[in-house]
Amino acid sequence: MSSNQAFQDFYADEFARCYGCGRLNEHGLHIRSWWDGDETVCTFVPRPEHTAIPGFVYGGLIASLIDCHGTGSAAGAALRARGGEPGTAPMPRFVTGSLHVEYLRPTPLGPTLEIRGTIQEIKGRKVVVTSTLSAEGVVCARGEVVALEIPEGFGAQGG
Amino acid sequence: MSSNQAFQDFYADEFARCYGCGRLNEHGLHIRSWWDGDETVCTFVPRPEHTAIPGFVYGGLIASLIDCHGTGSAAGAALRARGGEPGTAPMPRFVTGSLHVEYLRPTPLGPTLEIRGTIQEIKGRKVVVTSTLSAEGVVCARGEVVALEIPEGFGAQGG
Repeated sequence: MSSNQAFQDFYADEFARCYGCGRLNEHGLHIRSWWDGDETVCTFVPRPEHTAIPGFVYGGLIASLIDCHGTGSAAGAALRARGGEPGTAPMPRFVTGSLHVEYLRPTPLGPTLEIRGTIQEIKGRKVVVTSTLSAEGVVCARGEVVALEIPEGFGAQGG
Repeated sequence: MSSNQAFQDFYADEFARCYGCGRLNEHGLHIRSWWDGDETVCTFVPRPEHTAIPGFVYGGLIASLIDCHGTGSAAGAALRARGGEPGTAPMPRFVTGSLHVEYLRPTPLGPTLEIRGTIQEIKGRKVVVTSTLSAEGVVCARGEVVALEIPEGFGAQGG
């Protein structure tokens, strides 16, 4: 299995409409994350309109990247904890319980951004993921997502 | 002066390109915030594509609303602390130092969202703003923004 098989590529169709990471949202950002050893990684090139102060990336986009990378990483981690890898078993789906972002320095608009996640905790239906967001090797933001697994049957109800 | 004169309407042109709240960003969200007594308020109707799980609002959009409402509120609060109101003096411009969002319950997609901010602290170039985000009178998310005033001259350099 290629290491860039993204967690989000395996979400069930009814959970694949997210503006941030849904492969079926034609207007969305299509954020994708995958394993790199024990870390998770995502790369993203902001569009020119994703600006804050001219020349720098919009903080809300940075929050979105950390958010969807966090819930995707949580899904991958929960699956791995159950002995699975993307594509080998149904992918669980997590939503965000809380999101924290520290903006350490302005993030330049233009370069590819790399978000790297570390699984801090898996407990029941909760997974905690911390991430760094870097541009050209410099960490510009740090984030934490507390992700919660969606109860079974929610999709049928909600979607 | 009408109470819905938005803080963001008075940002200097070089600071009005933000994807979240810049009036000059033609692809952006055009988030606008204003005083309501001692609180700040913002209303926003998400677009259909701003979905998370179908039927509910994307968490990254909620983070963006709390973010830009927070920095806008910080600008209004700093101006008021100096004796000014929007339109009577140059509007300061804040960026986000940190952002925290608690997602209390799924936010329904469809109704107008209302974000209400409270100024918690003004200290030097730092302003702390807490916000609630509600749909049809129910608080669905809570947030905190630590906003930092941009040093003078940054615009000429960054923009």
